[in-house]
Amino acid sequence: MINPFDDTYFMKKALQEAEVAFEKGEIPVGAIVVIKDKIIARSHNLTELLNDVTAHAEMQAITSAANFLGGKYLQDCTLYVTLEPCQMCAGALYWSQISKIVFGASDEQRGFRVMGTKLHPKTKVVNGILEKEASELMKRFFIEKRNLN
Amino acid sequence: MINPFDDTYFMKKALQEAEVAFEKGEIPVGAIVVIKDKIIARSHNLTELLNDVTAHAEMQAITSAANFLGGKYLQDCTLYVTLEPCQMCAGALYWSQISKIVFGASDEQRGFRVMGTKLHPKTKVVNGILEKEASELMKRFFIEKRNLN
Repeated sequence: MINPFDDTYFMKKALQEAEVAFEKGEIPVGAIVVIKDKIIARSHNLTELLNDVTAHAEMQAITSAANFLGGKYLQDCTLYVTLEPCQMCAGALYWSQISKIVFGASDEQRGFRVMGTKLHPKTKVVNGILEKEASELMKRFFIEKRNLN
Repeated sequence: MINPFDDTYFMKKALQEAEVAFEKGEIPVGAIVVIKDKIIARSHNLTELLNDVTAHAEMQAITSAANFLGGKYLQDCTLYVTLEPCQMCAGALYWSQISKIVFGASDEQRGFRVMGTKLHPKTKVVNGILEKEASELMKRFFIEKRNLN
């Protein structure tokens, strides 16, 4: 039997969150947290609406998933996020001891890899899932923003 | 005239926050944010109480200060924190473009310096203010915790 719950399936859900951010005028990044094929947190970037640099999609997803689980560690969880996490989010993921991080588009400027942020040794990383879709949504956002200003 | 509002004065306020964390059974770290000699945010570590790895003193202080200011950038602010910020908190401070970070005790294991986290180029760093007091509070916490277990 084919398992429909693969990384692409869940990344589509994260992309839906990114689209909600886009509609709100936020840099379009979405995230979800999954445990045993079940989505336990959904979030999108809200830095503009909340006037808060800490309101990245991943940070909210970590808080929300821990709240659902009743414990602060996400050892059996996977985070799906449309853009490569930054230093702050990778630092939070380090503390969470999350099992797996799957991201879509790379962030060559401020992504955790180019910045050298350390993840927890137990955390696996997969990248490039729906990368094109995530990148195009970002590009569309910045083009529309430029045209408005 | 002597200005009573020096780094030691404000670090004492951050230490008071760390003591509140201690009393709650949290790793005792406290933080405040100051703008023009005025305290606009006070916070302490709440990771255990909130079951949330993102609830470090600095993260709450950044959110709280931005909320007070009505904008997400802390360009004219100074953060006082009793312990050297971690990757996550330094990453958040990077986004905030804060003017100055003053910390007490160094964190040789997980502090942002040993982890290589980048701050904003405009951010100045001062360390070692009331270092002994901050370190001793941490040591006392871990000794008491070990004796309880």
